[in-house]
Amino acid sequence: AAASTEKVPVTVALGDGIGPEIMGATLRILEAAGARIAPQVIEIGEKVYLSGNSAGIAPEAWDSLRRTKVFLKAPITTPSGGGYKSLNVTVRKTLGLYANVRPCVSYAPFVDTPHDKMDVVIVRENEEDLYAGIEHRQTDEVFQCLKLITRPGCEKIIRYAFEYARSHGRRKVTCMVKDNIMKMTDGLFYKVFQEIGAEYPDIGQERFIIDIGSARIATHPERFDVIVTPNLYGDIISDIAAEITGSVGLAGSANIGEHVAMFEAIHGSAPDIAGKGVANPSGLLLGAVMMLVHIRQADIAQKIHNAWLRTIEDGIHTADLKGEKTSRVVGTDEFAQAVVERLGQLP
Amino acid sequence: AAASTEKVPVTVALGDGIGPEIMGATLRILEAAGARIAPQVIEIGEKVYLSGNSAGIAPEAWDSLRRTKVFLKAPITTPSGGGYKSLNVTVRKTLGLYANVRPCVSYAPFVDTPHDKMDVVIVRENEEDLYAGIEHRQTDEVFQCLKLITRPGCEKIIRYAFEYARSHGRRKVTCMVKDNIMKMTDGLFYKVFQEIGAEYPDIGQERFIIDIGSARIATHPERFDVIVTPNLYGDIISDIAAEITGSVGLAGSANIGEHVAMFEAIHGSAPDIAGKGVANPSGLLLGAVMMLVHIRQADIAQKIHNAWLRTIEDGIHTADLKGEKTSRVVGTDEFAQAVVERLGQLP
Ligand SMILES: CC(C)[C@H](C(=O)O)[C@@H](O)C(=O)O
Ligand SMILES: CC(C)[C@H](C(=O)O)[C@@H](O)C(=O)O
Repeated sequence: AAASTEKVPVTVALGDGIGPEIMGATLRILEAAGARIAPQVIEIGEKVYLSGNSAGIAPEAWDSLRRTKVFLKAPITTPSGGGYKSLNVTVRKTLGLYANVRPCVSYAPFVDTPHDKMDVVIVRENEEDLYAGIEHRQTDEVFQCLKLITRPGCEKIIRYAFEYARSHGRRKVTCMVKDNIMKMTDGLFYKVFQEIGAEYPDIGQERFIIDIGSARIATHPERFDVIVTPNLYGDIISDIAAEITGSVGLAGSANIGEHVAMFEAIHGSAPDIAGKGVANPSGLLLGAVMMLVHIRQADIAQKIHNAWLRTIEDGIHTADLKGEKTSRVVGTDEFAQAVVERLGQLP
Repeated sequence: AAASTEKVPVTVALGDGIGPEIMGATLRILEAAGARIAPQVIEIGEKVYLSGNSAGIAPEAWDSLRRTKVFLKAPITTPSGGGYKSLNVTVRKTLGLYANVRPCVSYAPFVDTPHDKMDVVIVRENEEDLYAGIEHRQTDEVFQCLKLITRPGCEKIIRYAFEYARSHGRRKVTCMVKDNIMKMTDGLFYKVFQEIGAEYPDIGQERFIIDIGSARIATHPERFDVIVTPNLYGDIISDIAAEITGSVGLAGSANIGEHVAMFEAIHGSAPDIAGKGVANPSGLLLGAVMMLVHIRQADIAQKIHNAWLRTIEDGIHTADLKGEKTSRVVGTDEFAQAVVERLGQLP
């Protein structure tokens, strides 16, 4: 019982663009809910890049991450132009965050969406594929990027997806690949899916080619349950799945590794609306809820999730949401305040 | 005038799965409309593969294609398993069909779709990217596929997109890439987009990252006009765009090269419904309409397009379409018959 009142150190990055606003709102809700966390703020992203650190992250930040092993990260911006590597990818690869888990749920009738029964979890491979970062110039006119798929990589993510399905009472795992074209790389992914799938006879299994699979997500998301897919496809379909719930601003995600886990919104830093106080903090907040479950504060996680749902159901919405049931369009802080006021209420 | 009554030789492949059914329906409509074509049927696809020809296409078929330079192709199946290369890709690459043009239009209120104002043309690069077919095994556990992007390839497709926009009275070309990750390959594509775009100040220009771009197509397709994108992204977003018009069975496409052009449906061979006489021939028919324009029989093309539209508007629909205005659900042949009966009518 002593342990359960101790604060858990958590590394926090405020991010770029709308990052600081939505992180402020999120931390405020966590605190009001009694989350037992001790945030350690690190500097990453645009400012660090532009100070001449081309990695976008200082060595001390890595130390914090290796100590706390838990990371709550707001969206960051990688400056465009030569020499800057995506920090998102660097962090995922350096910390070995192989599974990117992205639940996309519809909140109809409270948020307008044609897809009222949707409840999909996308389990995206997070280290390999075209994201391995192996890209080079052959001649002035020819550039190449390597898509890398390994058996250990496939095994880890596919087993994760099946274990996730089983432990979350889910009934089906869909594999999405383009193995009619990429017979070796995507072929391997699907082969491993079949091999590992054989160990989970209690879970339904199917394959979609990614083209028609993406199309079916866009039109019939309710027919999917858990989806496991290589990195780039997962990037694309998770934005589709989130956006059709009503807003890409509604989805949080967990990036899981053997040692460290990172939690974030699935959307970007939205520089166009930064500083205006209108951003939706829900994606990051739901990422933080996943984090609280991860650090065994599921009771607090549930309390926040309930209050958040209640806020949405009461029609208190940020400007990105369109609902017939919207009663009040609010800014980031007001939204957070509404959630805080509903802590302890049920949806 | 003599020339205009001569029949134009056209290479035709009946395809696999639903291929023969929808090609039969399409040719019947073309004939009834007075299309001046002389079909030369070639054998490609499953049967050819399984007869031991691992390319899936006989040498004589290439001769026909090089002679006629016009190809109407039903969907084909590449057998799964080792050794078989995708014939679709082989044909596109061998004939240098660099531009894959895929118009996706909504037919609301006659076909149910939430997207009643949608009229998008996807111009998909058709030879490079991960489709270049360079895939190999590094070790038993590591496989690689090469994503190839070249400056000449980018220049050809991007110029094609801008010329298409200009000659079709379109106002905007959107470039979709993932250049925040693939800075060299997708970065080159976007760089060339900006360079060539500068020559078309009359056409609006914008860039989307493919993740959120795909999501926006799924939710707000009406905000797009012409989209130009590398091969794999184009594969994915054209299925999304077609499917949200009501059915992937509604879209045809043109594959354009310097010397040869190929016309097809964008969907596959749908083995699950093959032989049942229920497939929607519209995708292939609309591909054939594009072919008739290409061979300068635009009057016949218009006549068929009008009759087809009229059929759809009269509520005569194949089973894949759902419309509040559906008056009769028909099979492939009955649908073709309905179109034939409406030749000469206006929508
Ligand atoms: C910002 C970008 C590098 C990132 C990705 O491509 O993974 C983002 O789109 C995401 O999905 O988290
Ligand atoms: C069948 C397949 C090879 C093809 C592709 O990937 O290009 C198809 O999906 C298409 O879009 O025409």
